[in-house]
Amino acid sequence: MGFWKNLFSGSEAPSSPNSGSMEVFSSYDGTGDRPEADFRICFSTDRDLDLYELEELCDAVGWSRRPLRKVKKAIQYSFLVVTMWEVRGKRRRLIGFSRATSDHAFNATIWDVVVHPSFQGKGLGKALMNYTIKKLRYEDISNITLFADPHVVDFYRMLGFMPDPEGIKGMFWYPNHN
Amino acid sequence: MGFWKNLFSGSEAPSSPNSGSMEVFSSYDGTGDRPEADFRICFSTDRDLDLYELEELCDAVGWSRRPLRKVKKAIQYSFLVVTMWEVRGKRRRLIGFSRATSDHAFNATIWDVVVHPSFQGKGLGKALMNYTIKKLRYEDISNITLFADPHVVDFYRMLGFMPDPEGIKGMFWYPNHN
Repeated sequence: MGFWKNLFSGSEAPSSPNSGSMEVFSSYDGTGDRPEADFRICFSTDRDLDLYELEELCDAVGWSRRPLRKVKKAIQYSFLVVTMWEVRGKRRRLIGFSRATSDHAFNATIWDVVVHPSFQGKGLGKALMNYTIKKLRYEDISNITLFADPHVVDFYRMLGFMPDPEGIKGMFWYPNHN
Repeated sequence: MGFWKNLFSGSEAPSSPNSGSMEVFSSYDGTGDRPEADFRICFSTDRDLDLYELEELCDAVGWSRRPLRKVKKAIQYSFLVVTMWEVRGKRRRLIGFSRATSDHAFNATIWDVVVHPSFQGKGLGKALMNYTIKKLRYEDISNITLFADPHVVDFYRMLGFMPDPEGIKGMFWYPNHN
């Protein structure tokens, strides 16, 4: 698994945050003919994605289904949308997703981070998040936030996120309260 | 202080969330001539506000100054901007502010909630927040979130916000970590 390590050791970070898509990993070492089993992992910020494919990805991790009309709107009005792809020859498969809302100036909040179960445990979640953070930082967003489920708090901590810094509490409004 | 109570007992909520501005309180009871000392508290969602007046309000509560260029951009790209005004005759004074980022579909995050110190302790912060929530709900936003400083957690709790529901943690990314 040395190549995964090479990929995610820091230098894999996107060098050109303006680019719409980039390749971060290839099983092909660049010498000789590309082998038939060659595959690559690519990121993209292109929002023109198949919503059914995204739904399939979210289904795979057990998320509740949401109306595609609203998903489409959420993608349209997100500040940043990041997709992660497994590419084999001309075929590509959506294997990860994240997006962020923002005021385009100070704050961003990351939502809907997902990696397909078959691709988990390989450092790809970390790569997806590092790519997302890089993009937000490139846009000069100083305050990057998220709301983490309990089982992923340590994952985000490892990436540099701090829970409740200086006692600041993440809070959710519940309609039935009033 | 009976009139404040009447104002914030629930029925004060904006009946027409589409309206750009509304009056929620008047010291004038509607009978006879308007007295000279008459004043009203009004809300608005109009973004065309004097940034220096907003800076003055933020100064009054001791916030760090931020570049007006970025403040302008943040206001432009916020999903919702709410201002609260004291109106005396033709003069109006900015006494409260809040804004929210959103994906226009599922999530909103409220930022920069401020009430001028001279107007605190009168239920106006609650009124400002209720107005903000009402607007977001009217736009069919289901998940309203915020990050609360420790000393205002109870204030937001009273308004129906819950800290760390189901163990979900608010997290902030720190650039110096990596």
